[in-house]
Amino acid sequence: MRTTLAWQAGEPATTSLVRAPIRRRDLRPDDVAVRVDFCGVCHTDLHALRAHDGTRDSPLVPGHEFTGTVTEIGSAVTTHAVGDPVAVGNIVDSCGTCAMCLAGQENFCREFPTLTYDGTDRRDGSRTLGGYAREYVVRDRFVHALPRGLDPAAAAPLLCAGITVWEPLRTLGVGPSTRVAVAGLGGLGHLAVKLAVALGADTTVISRTPDKAADAKGLGADGLLVSTDEEAMAAARDSFDVVIDTISAPHDLAPYLHVVAMDGTLCQVGDLGTVSVDIIDLLIGRKRLTSAGSGGLATTADLLAFAAEHGIGADVEVLPSSRVSEALDRLDRGDVRYRFVLDMSDLDA
Amino acid sequence: MRTTLAWQAGEPATTSLVRAPIRRRDLRPDDVAVRVDFCGVCHTDLHALRAHDGTRDSPLVPGHEFTGTVTEIGSAVTTHAVGDPVAVGNIVDSCGTCAMCLAGQENFCREFPTLTYDGTDRRDGSRTLGGYAREYVVRDRFVHALPRGLDPAAAAPLLCAGITVWEPLRTLGVGPSTRVAVAGLGGLGHLAVKLAVALGADTTVISRTPDKAADAKGLGADGLLVSTDEEAMAAARDSFDVVIDTISAPHDLAPYLHVVAMDGTLCQVGDLGTVSVDIIDLLIGRKRLTSAGSGGLATTADLLAFAAEHGIGADVEVLPSSRVSEALDRLDRGDVRYRFVLDMSDLDA
Repeated sequence: MRTTLAWQAGEPATTSLVRAPIRRRDLRPDDVAVRVDFCGVCHTDLHALRAHDGTRDSPLVPGHEFTGTVTEIGSAVTTHAVGDPVAVGNIVDSCGTCAMCLAGQENFCREFPTLTYDGTDRRDGSRTLGGYAREYVVRDRFVHALPRGLDPAAAAPLLCAGITVWEPLRTLGVGPSTRVAVAGLGGLGHLAVKLAVALGADTTVISRTPDKAADAKGLGADGLLVSTDEEAMAAARDSFDVVIDTISAPHDLAPYLHVVAMDGTLCQVGDLGTVSVDIIDLLIGRKRLTSAGSGGLATTADLLAFAAEHGIGADVEVLPSSRVSEALDRLDRGDVRYRFVLDMSDLDA
Repeated sequence: MRTTLAWQAGEPATTSLVRAPIRRRDLRPDDVAVRVDFCGVCHTDLHALRAHDGTRDSPLVPGHEFTGTVTEIGSAVTTHAVGDPVAVGNIVDSCGTCAMCLAGQENFCREFPTLTYDGTDRRDGSRTLGGYAREYVVRDRFVHALPRGLDPAAAAPLLCAGITVWEPLRTLGVGPSTRVAVAGLGGLGHLAVKLAVALGADTTVISRTPDKAADAKGLGADGLLVSTDEEAMAAARDSFDVVIDTISAPHDLAPYLHVVAMDGTLCQVGDLGTVSVDIIDLLIGRKRLTSAGSGGLATTADLLAFAAEHGIGADVEVLPSSRVSEALDRLDRGDVRYRFVLDMSDLDA
């Protein structure tokens, strides 16, 4: 076993993480050791910390969107070399043989993919510990080469926030003639806007307050629709082919379904749990409700190539990892434009 | 005004209809008078009768899928002639100018289409009275020519049950390579099976009991999946591109979403009202939930042509209209294979 320093929850349900050593496994033949340089702070991390009851043997170390540098490779690894810039997302293994894996959707693996943290390693049954650490050891297939030209801090959030909105944009065929609306302008939403704009879509931000107009424009959006403005919402009825709803707080989906165009789609990516839908809101206009989350390996590579080509990264606020608790608390208050990224280099000090 | 005989609800919330004369308007220039020959008995009729509180000035006359014969035409009518066999569905007017009407989706008219019964006439504000009558007066655009070769009794249910399942089958691109499942084998379900089979789809019936196997085969389906057989349902996971759920009783949608294939669609046409959906059941496999109901004029004409070409009608039990109450009560108990149709000729006696 090897050790590295990490930020971990020492107590149940806390955002006050403590710096402490954790163990990483010795490299298997198909493993890659990555020095974690930048790790994004995702809403899921907050959820996981809150749900953490401290009864498990292993600590909770969050973090599932990170970029870094290869420091060592297993004996059978041919796809990565020491010194390579790489990126890892929220899954680090899958069965590889089920219909979903064979379709390139390892995120939907029928045996459940191994999550980057708080998951169970398929081979030794150990609990996975996340990227709020200086080192991560990961199976080679789940390590992405980071294309040249991508800033490693701004690229980290592409691996979870980015891919979660990229998959539906791609699957729903978003392109130059598509009318896209993005509800919610947080980590996922701002990347959805940038990506939709880069795909050539006519892109509108839907926000509760008009003060987001400058932000929307700054991200390249064509307009802002204020969801609390009933007149504007009524005028926008049936007008978007695709609505990506990134709002993670519980909310009524009806107003967002109303602005979907005939045969269009509302894609909810905000992890809302169980929602109520009036079937009539789907019936009139034959509208579709769907969701998406994370992504397959091939689509993730596709996103990284597209982002590099179009110069797209997340708008990030980079903090030294020692300020992780501040990042979590500010994220909880929505006080970030648009994603915190932890610089893990201070763990060397 | 002109009069005709009809079956109407004399009291609130009853299925005991009484035979009594009703008024029809004198023909407007674009009106057609239709002698109603056969009228289907739809679940909506039961709902409407139950909801009928008797407080309105006009009686409730159900019936919104009927075939008949043109007996008179207005001065401006050029598309129909006296003696023509025709068919009328559940809408009899729409604004004609909104985006939905212009897209050929009069059923989604933004000013709300005029329903064939219990609706409000756009011009004189009167309450519409349905097809459980010997005559109906209707705007020419909403009268469909009944193609030769279609049995008028078996064709009547195409105008509501048929079109409601035909639109999603068409919109979702069902064809020879499509794996379709139809849940529920009633008026809508049995037509969905026949139409999907005729479109060349690999068609499966989903039913709660295995005793539907012979019925499913008789309708041309390739197989039966028993929804109460957990093992069979688990084996069918992620296996249908399109699931048409025609079950009108409240039920959990999750098992039906589970058998939808990746990027496939569950279309609920059973008028369930508000449903609960766990977003994770949409997320894993990026599955889509939608609905449909009724249809546009062009799609309805398309259905009638397709049905004539493939010799498709509903499997009907024809009863003299005097037995309408028996039909309603047996429909309520599910005692029909698969649609009651009333023969209105006894109203002449």
